Amino acid sequence: MGRKKYLFTPGPTPVPPQVLAALAEPVVHHRSPDFRTIYERCLARLREVCRTEQDVLLFTASGTGAFESAVANLVSPGEPHLVVSAGNFGERWASLATAYGAEVDHLRYAWGETPEPDDVRARLRERGAKAVWVVQSETSTGVVADVQALAAAAKEADALVVVDAVSSLGAVPCETDAWGLDVVVSGSQKALMTPPGLGLCAVSAAALGATGSSPRFYFDWERTRKAQVSLDAAFTPAVSLVAALDVALGLLLEEGLDAAFERHVRLGRAARAGAKAMGLELFSPDEDRSAVVTAIRSPDGIDAGDIVKALRERFDITIAGGQGELRGKIFRLGHIGWFDVFDIATMLAAVELVVSELGADIERGVAVTAALEAYEHSRVA
Amino acid sequence: MGRKKYLFTPGPTPVPPQVLAALAEPVVHHRSPDFRTIYERCLARLREVCRTEQDVLLFTASGTGAFESAVANLVSPGEPHLVVSAGNFGERWASLATAYGAEVDHLRYAWGETPEPDDVRARLRERGAKAVWVVQSETSTGVVADVQALAAAAKEADALVVVDAVSSLGAVPCETDAWGLDVVVSGSQKALMTPPGLGLCAVSAAALGATGSSPRFYFDWERTRKAQVSLDAAFTPAVSLVAALDVALGLLLEEGLDAAFERHVRLGRAARAGAKAMGLELFSPDEDRSAVVTAIRSPDGIDAGDIVKALRERFDITIAGGQGELRGKIFRLGHIGWFDVFDIATMLAAVELVVSELGADIERGVAVTAALEAYEHSRVA
Repeated sequence: MGRKKYLFTPGPTPVPPQVLAALAEPVVHHRSPDFRTIYERCLARLREVCRTEQDVLLFTASGTGAFESAVANLVSPGEPHLVVSAGNFGERWASLATAYGAEVDHLRYAWGETPEPDDVRARLRERGAKAVWVVQSETSTGVVADVQALAAAAKEADALVVVDAVSSLGAVPCETDAWGLDVVVSGSQKALMTPPGLGLCAVSAAALGATGSSPRFYFDWERTRKAQVSLDAAFTPAVSLVAALDVALGLLLEEGLDAAFERHVRLGRAARAGAKAMGLELFSPDEDRSAVVTAIRSPDGIDAGDIVKALRERFDITIAGGQGELRGKIFRLGHIGWFDVFDIATMLAAVELVVSELGADIERGVAVTAALEAYEHSRVA
Repeated sequence: MGRKKYLFTPGPTPVPPQVLAALAEPVVHHRSPDFRTIYERCLARLREVCRTEQDVLLFTASGTGAFESAVANLVSPGEPHLVVSAGNFGERWASLATAYGAEVDHLRYAWGETPEPDDVRARLRERGAKAVWVVQSETSTGVVADVQALAAAAKEADALVVVDAVSSLGAVPCETDAWGLDVVVSGSQKALMTPPGLGLCAVSAAALGATGSSPRFYFDWERTRKAQVSLDAAFTPAVSLVAALDVALGLLLEEGLDAAFERHVRLGRAARAGAKAMGLELFSPDEDRSAVVTAIRSPDGIDAGDIVKALRERFDITIAGGQGELRGKIFRLGHIGWFDVFDIATMLAAVELVVSELGADIERGVAVTAALEAYEHSRVA
């Protein structure tokens, strides 16, 4: 009923009004000069955000669609691939690679664990792999893996490295070229502050040279790459979303990528400090990489789903519950993209009220202050 | 700078302001009750527009992506499939089916010809096919095929029927259930008056029961169908585009499908009457089915590309040139979706001026009146 709505999930994330306004612009034709200008600038900004000189391929699809492009282009039936998983999304990629006939060596951690480069090394010594598939930010658990170290382990065995950076790109450092990442996959609807509908894939020359025999057309890298070089999209792109993404990337680059990374680190610290101050137990690791989503254990005797439901019904605040085996056990506060410390204060204040009303024995009145303090006193630079 | 822009291409098409306004609404989470309400209504409206009781699967993708879902789900390597083509899009579908390993029997007409049901019958008698793939409105030529008759020919041979209705759904009749169409593919950016980014696929029980062995995940019908039944999208959909499509479908159904079909027939008559009145030669057949795009031959000695360019540079009017082998030879006026007769008047007036200035010997001052007369005096009912 006209109440303010708050979107505090780890994707889709809140979209700034300037970006929403771009969505409402009249539609332009995808082969017109009007669109080519936007398209060219948007692709250049994506390369900047991915920190790569190589191609960033843009697909009208969700992040899963862009990820499937990596599988469809790199996997041939019967080939060995090492998939590292520690949560819902890692497991999805194992299923996807299996659907394309990969011989998947699944290095599978319990949900919430952090993948270890030495485990990758050991697996590759044992069985080898054409590519190692890793998740940077496992949205289901809040864990952000050390992609630089995992990539280094893969490189030692001459494997390609494919990174799911869907919920991390633009929020935590992802140095595509400097870390030797062959494929970085992301989507519009997380730190890139745009509605869902665009998926992207930064692709190295080595990856482009290693494509296989799986059937593909819409997600074919070479077709998309050639079309982008001439700014002539292979298929009608979601022009409104591309225009919106272009505006959002402009905002992100105006803030500066390093400043955005620092802000996310500090937001993560603030969220964790507030949760701990009121006596809740973190599920996410309490470390600086965990800057994307804060996962919190539901207090004993309280189903996390009831917290999610109460926040929605009482305040139109949307947060996320646990997925899969964590359903009912954790709830997740997203702070990816267009967030500042007062959003953290709002989510903590509301959680505090609702959790308390559900009967948990927590400390009232300290979380917001703890969060603001943690944010203020934790400048990274 | 600030001039009015006119989008007169056969897709993307102009989007009504009510639909643009929906795009600019704050983003909602795809698993929230807010979105489920929109999603459910949008899917129901799509069934109504497709005139089917069966599932209409919605993908975040272009029309080509939705079409690929049909190929990926129905084609197994080595299977016989009959692809009917008479232009750019038909040929694209032949390439797509070939990419998935189909043994394609390609019934290939010259661009601009109209496919004949008897030719389909003859091919099926000779070689048989698991499915017959046809294009309803061949956007590259303006020809609208008689899908009902083509489908009947396929049914006699027990083949499945897959229809590319990307530029026709909502503009010309497409009776999915009554005509026994197994798969009807369309996109958001044509007669459905929404920006590009959503593809859809109406799928019969027979088609769902005939899926094959090609690898697929994002475009897998069963995964999408199951998710839609519980209103729980398989992957993060383009929520803003779904909300916009819902509004646009509401407008279309408010007008009434039959009224929209009649309007398109009359717009087609008006465009053809105007073009002929000024002395231009039609490339599209001069018949009522040709209600989607009017293709016109460029006058002798004038490159159609120069007409397209002059309209854009002088007036910010975007029309389409010829594709493939028709490049330079024809230009195309789209009148799909949010068009009325004064849009036809505008496009004819501008074409008349520009073609005349390029040196063609045409009659000035008669086209608009001819178009308005043809529209007024051609009520179908």
